[in-house]
Amino acid sequence: MISAQVVYGLLLCRLLHVLGTESKSHISVVLVGATGDLAKKYLWQGLFQSYAEQLGGAHSLSFYGGTRLSSLEASPVMYEILKGLSCLPNVPSVKCVLLKDQFLKSTQYHQLDTHEDYSALNKKIEETLAQEGLREEGRLFYLSIPAFAYANTATKINATCRPRGGSWLRVVLEKPFGHDLHSAQRLAEELQKVLREEEMYRIDHYLGKQAIAHILPFRHDNQHSLDPIWNQHHVERVEIVMKETLDSKGRTSFYEQYGVICDVVQNHLTEILTFVAMETPANISDSEEIHRNKMKVYASLERLEKRSAVTGQYQAYNSEVRQELQKPADYISTVPTFAGIAMFLDSPQWDNVPFILTAGKALDERVGYTRILFKNKAFCLQNESTRKAGFSQCRQRQIIFYVGHGDLNFPAILVSKNLFKPVIDASSWKQVTEFPDVQMFGIPLSDYYIYTPVMQKDAYAVLIPQIFQAKRDSFINTEDLLASWKVWTPLLKEHSKVSPRLYPGGAQNGDILDFTVEGRVVSFSRSDPVQIISESPSLQTASDYKAIASTFRGNTLVSAGTEDLIIKLASHLQQKAQDAVQERGNFHLAVSGGSSPIDLFRRLAMHHYMFPWKRTHFWMVDERCVPFDDPKSNFRSLHDNLLKYFRIPYVNIHPMPVRMNQRLCVEDDRGADLYANEIEMLVNRTSFDFVLLGVGADGHTASLFPNSQALTHEGNLVLFTESPVKPHQRMTLSLSAINKARHVAVLITGKIKHPLVARISKEVKKSEKLPITMVQPSGGELIWFIDHDALFG
Amino acid sequence: MISAQVVYGLLLCRLLHVLGTESKSHISVVLVGATGDLAKKYLWQGLFQSYAEQLGGAHSLSFYGGTRLSSLEASPVMYEILKGLSCLPNVPSVKCVLLKDQFLKSTQYHQLDTHEDYSALNKKIEETLAQEGLREEGRLFYLSIPAFAYANTATKINATCRPRGGSWLRVVLEKPFGHDLHSAQRLAEELQKVLREEEMYRIDHYLGKQAIAHILPFRHDNQHSLDPIWNQHHVERVEIVMKETLDSKGRTSFYEQYGVICDVVQNHLTEILTFVAMETPANISDSEEIHRNKMKVYASLERLEKRSAVTGQYQAYNSEVRQELQKPADYISTVPTFAGIAMFLDSPQWDNVPFILTAGKALDERVGYTRILFKNKAFCLQNESTRKAGFSQCRQRQIIFYVGHGDLNFPAILVSKNLFKPVIDASSWKQVTEFPDVQMFGIPLSDYYIYTPVMQKDAYAVLIPQIFQAKRDSFINTEDLLASWKVWTPLLKEHSKVSPRLYPGGAQNGDILDFTVEGRVVSFSRSDPVQIISESPSLQTASDYKAIASTFRGNTLVSAGTEDLIIKLASHLQQKAQDAVQERGNFHLAVSGGSSPIDLFRRLAMHHYMFPWKRTHFWMVDERCVPFDDPKSNFRSLHDNLLKYFRIPYVNIHPMPVRMNQRLCVEDDRGADLYANEIEMLVNRTSFDFVLLGVGADGHTASLFPNSQALTHEGNLVLFTESPVKPHQRMTLSLSAINKARHVAVLITGKIKHPLVARISKEVKKSEKLPITMVQPSGGELIWFIDHDALFG
Repeated sequence: MISAQVVYGLLLCRLLHVLGTESKSHISVVLVGATGDLAKKYLWQGLFQSYAEQLGGAHSLSFYGGTRLSSLEASPVMYEILKGLSCLPNVPSVKCVLLKDQFLKSTQYHQLDTHEDYSALNKKIEETLAQEGLREEGRLFYLSIPAFAYANTATKINATCRPRGGSWLRVVLEKPFGHDLHSAQRLAEELQKVLREEEMYRIDHYLGKQAIAHILPFRHDNQHSLDPIWNQHHVERVEIVMKETLDSKGRTSFYEQYGVICDVVQNHLTEILTFVAMETPANISDSEEIHRNKMKVYASLERLEKRSAVTGQYQAYNSEVRQELQKPADYISTVPTFAGIAMFLDSPQWDNVPFILTAGKALDERVGYTRILFKNKAFCLQNESTRKAGFSQCRQRQIIFYVGHGDLNFPAILVSKNLFKPVIDASSWKQVTEFPDVQMFGIPLSDYYIYTPVMQKDAYAVLIPQIFQAKRDSFINTEDLLASWKVWTPLLKEHSKVSPRLYPGGAQNGDILDFTVEGRVVSFSRSDPVQIISESPSLQTASDYKAIASTFRGNTLVSAGTEDLIIKLASHLQQKAQDAVQERGNFHLAVSGGSSPIDLFRRLAMHHYMFPWKRTHFWMVDERCVPFDDPKSNFRSLHDNLLKYFRIPYVNIHPMPVRMNQRLCVEDDRGADLYANEIEMLVNRTSFDFVLLGVGADGHTASLFPNSQALTHEGNLVLFTESPVKPHQRMTLSLSAINKARHVAVLITGKIKHPLVARISKEVKKSEKLPITMVQPSGGELIWFIDHDALFG
Repeated sequence: MISAQVVYGLLLCRLLHVLGTESKSHISVVLVGATGDLAKKYLWQGLFQSYAEQLGGAHSLSFYGGTRLSSLEASPVMYEILKGLSCLPNVPSVKCVLLKDQFLKSTQYHQLDTHEDYSALNKKIEETLAQEGLREEGRLFYLSIPAFAYANTATKINATCRPRGGSWLRVVLEKPFGHDLHSAQRLAEELQKVLREEEMYRIDHYLGKQAIAHILPFRHDNQHSLDPIWNQHHVERVEIVMKETLDSKGRTSFYEQYGVICDVVQNHLTEILTFVAMETPANISDSEEIHRNKMKVYASLERLEKRSAVTGQYQAYNSEVRQELQKPADYISTVPTFAGIAMFLDSPQWDNVPFILTAGKALDERVGYTRILFKNKAFCLQNESTRKAGFSQCRQRQIIFYVGHGDLNFPAILVSKNLFKPVIDASSWKQVTEFPDVQMFGIPLSDYYIYTPVMQKDAYAVLIPQIFQAKRDSFINTEDLLASWKVWTPLLKEHSKVSPRLYPGGAQNGDILDFTVEGRVVSFSRSDPVQIISESPSLQTASDYKAIASTFRGNTLVSAGTEDLIIKLASHLQQKAQDAVQERGNFHLAVSGGSSPIDLFRRLAMHHYMFPWKRTHFWMVDERCVPFDDPKSNFRSLHDNLLKYFRIPYVNIHPMPVRMNQRLCVEDDRGADLYANEIEMLVNRTSFDFVLLGVGADGHTASLFPNSQALTHEGNLVLFTESPVKPHQRMTLSLSAINKARHVAVLITGKIKHPLVARISKEVKKSEKLPITMVQPSGGELIWFIDHDALFG
């Protein structure tokens, strides 16, 4: 084909003057799935524009389109697609005609289904190269096919189409890359059998949107202005938003499998988060550095919990699903079509800054943006009516990477004028000085510096050339992908049991999907509109029972709905704390780990200002032998849910020294003795004022497990023990330490604990099979706090 | 006089039907300074309105006005004043005429200068009571005279005018009550010699402004809505603002002594702060409870430092002072006429919420308000153009107590509609539904619930009846007053040496006085306009010298301007930390107390995100034997300026255990051994990676003082020592602990240290007279960081 170029006349001469020489290297591009929707809408167009830009560059190109159909069936369809291609607006039409013509001549159809088809393609490529005497640079396979076919297709490519010698093979894959960590891992493993990491280009086309692709260059170019403010001290929040008006009609078979989080949040929005949060790369074109920085962001992301997100589903979705997937009339889908998520990073740079990710279908407008909102720390004295608004430090300051559509309707980067005048690459971005009279986040456009690309380009036209150049940082490598799935999989699992809030769709949504981020908890701002989908009729538990004060195993029993129970326990605890401080000056509180006390901690943090925090000493009932920054650390849970909200004197905080000399729970380091020593020195007669215990389903309490030797250990206050479940190693208060306490409260909540509660109630005596039964304060008081779910099942 | 009432006709009958009976008790009101400005403008009017409201009440009233002038001279003036009195707008004019006439008849002039004058007044009062057969309830003396005459006048009153039997004496005083803690204390002591606490009514008329007087009742009535949000988790900031357009022309003799902080901030604005910040009183009419809650607020206020405030002076002030006070042409006043201050409370409820107090003269508008701005935690999905703005949770939410004037021009309480609909006492407040089309803090008035008093009253008319009723909570008692002065005196002292920023006055000020609150530091948002007043020509120190790397006492010397030096030391420290973590996994840093490292801590907190914080262990070089919440605590300084910005694992933080068993630094508690023990267990071969030292003017370092025994102590790592200055008791690392360190840095800054630096440089050998010379790491490196001021003087 390339030889055909020489027949062209003068007009093409200038364009082609380098192409004739034989020293040029050649790239073969194979688009698998050449007549599919994506190929038709974007990929051929992207390939064509890359081709046009490439002309006169370092290599020549030829294109093969393939599907499972025969050439006879598919060629006319492909021809139609290619005829419809368009040039960038800066290309004169006469030149465009020639370019298209030439592209057509460089392109052919090739059936690609069986092993033999791929072999034939390989032969064809090799023949062409030989005929034209071209030096092969590499082969690019663009797989625009369903994800389930990736492994199979890659296997065929590997077996038949690998170029010889030093030439490269690059295989481009389109999302989805799995629907959770496990499936993503499996797919990755299969692909890794036949392709090397550097041969895979997982494309996330959203990263080719010009405003998104420019986040890192912008940060790099404006480092001087941004460095002092790009952190928790100055950023109030980051919003990463992708709103669609479209619904998923016609695509429900895909959507039912994925939902909004897998569809756009796990990939597009999470990648953007890494661009915003990562350390500015020293070298903006060093893909390896960018990758390393990105991985640091993943490592610092706080674990997402159920309460980290709210989800919604547009009202018509369910009937669309029933219709398109032929489901029965009572079928109820809980797949979310909207999600609002708050993510946090545990890093000195971003501590406590919410990264709000939100996306949805059937919303009021189509718009995508990433907005960095800065804190207002200024007080402006002058009356606002006479203030020079645009530059006033009291106006909201923000930087917006605007993908397009929405009120602005073009891709842009906006910087509040009261922030700084940005530096921007003038060859690709230009300042906008005429704009519609609209407000953007409460501020007129005239109060922003606004930049837009000199030439608007489709995302594929941005990304495809980067594949040729092996610029990997806009693509998702395996490590990156799995790190992201590791973040999202727990949330997806948690939310698989949650019914999304229904919304009407479009502008009618009003404020129904607005949400609030309170600490780490995300909730809808408007309290429940009538839920059409509801889980089980469990509504009665919380409020229908009255609090019951009774006895359990001969001790006081307090029972109530879960929330009420927590409120009662918190008040009880405060009362005991106040009494202790009044009598003895301090309050020594030992708390357990696990999930049950978390609600109590939060309740105390948010509502108990009058608690004598400064006089309270915090001790641990037990600890897992993990570093304190591990999410499994009991102390970390206490810290994140309670301690960090108050300025409690550091000397009042007594985490168990599980990590000493850079190793965890080694007997020789005498950590248990050190802790016992601390208790002896500070706690009056080693009697804690209050010990808060939970119980495991096996009846263990603290880290004292059934039938363990530790149960009969006398004398020692603190012990090392072994748990039957991971992490195995533990440090724990001994039974003798617990039973010396003045007050002990055992908190048991949740239906899952009902069988255990039943067992305990029957076990009248102390039993090593149920360590909790061995908790019997010798001189103190024991109270059971058991919620209705655990008590009545 | 009272007997004269009976002659009035039918019209008055209804009004007076109770007054004729003899069972009524009588109050004599004496206004000292009866013809002064304040009396003329407000006090007589307040007394008259109280009188009018009082009619038909539980007691009858008679009034005496007095000055040092004879009756002949003063009576006509007083008569003129009384003739000009006006009734509240709801009183019909015919009734008003009668009321005024009656008030005139109940009022007489009495010369009040000498002891004899007061004796005569006493006689007069007693005669009248006897003549009319009235039972005396009490006597109220309102002192509207200069503060210097208070003690003298009160002494005469005490000596001559005390009522007999169970009748009360109340003496009302107008501010100023001193100009700092010392003078306020002296005045209080003098008054306490002659008056009992409950006899003094220190009036702060600003607390009688209706919107201010209603802060506590409003909080009480809306407790249900406010309790969950009236705290650090929801309040972004509180602004307490009093702007005046007036300058101090004609009053400079007063103003030069007081300045804006003593004039209005220490009293009006601080009192308001206590109303906003205090725990809601359970009983709103229990003055004692309100007082206790107020004192808790004072106790929790963080100490104000130089950087807690910015000050300004309107440009014409200085020449006004020269003119009015006949000062020489080179006289320069540094008295501020504007101040912006950020106050913080160390309490779980208000931790880190800035209370911004600001007041000034010659500003662009006259307005006063207290604004509680809530945090925006909501994300609103819908495009703002189609949002229902007023109720959107994304609109700023605020509560404003509006004193008057300004855009609104009437006293009001405003509550954002997206907060809640407040409960308000309908007998005294009414909702406003028609208002000017103005914005109030960026929000149209229609988006607020707005309430205004049913009847606008002057502050004195609000407060005077409260004196009759002995309702003390709107008045300042001695304890309250001294607590406030204790807060303000250190700041006044610090700022006596600071030149205020000059501002042109009026709307011309523009943004020149806007300020920013960054952490605890307040600074003007616009960097220095040309300072007309400047201290000494010390500008050259910072930038004119290049960094000098040299040696000092045989070790490396790093010198630079102060700021540059801190930057260098911070980078050096980070480098050593990274090296240590790479080589040994952890970085053990021991830091000194005192003021010099504070700038370093802040620099590290704000700029060194990449410091390996999570691997850094913090140890103390020395500690004062005070609780950790004491401002003198070294650990507190480290915590407040550095630690609290990061989530450093608690187990990495090692404050010295100066407080054990609820007592401070008692040898028997073995705190020093405990700390030594901790060092031995955690620090590799007890060699700290880095020890940061300062030096006292006497040459002491750590808490090792000249010629102390501790200097020759061998072996122990940690010692108790005695400081020659308070607080005397200290815990400190020993010289042997310090000299084992791998790296030691000595930081010395400030001109005041120059003589010391000179001495150290001459002392070639170790000398117990200069403990710093005994710091000589045996195997480690010592670097001196000395700024130009300290090095060159």
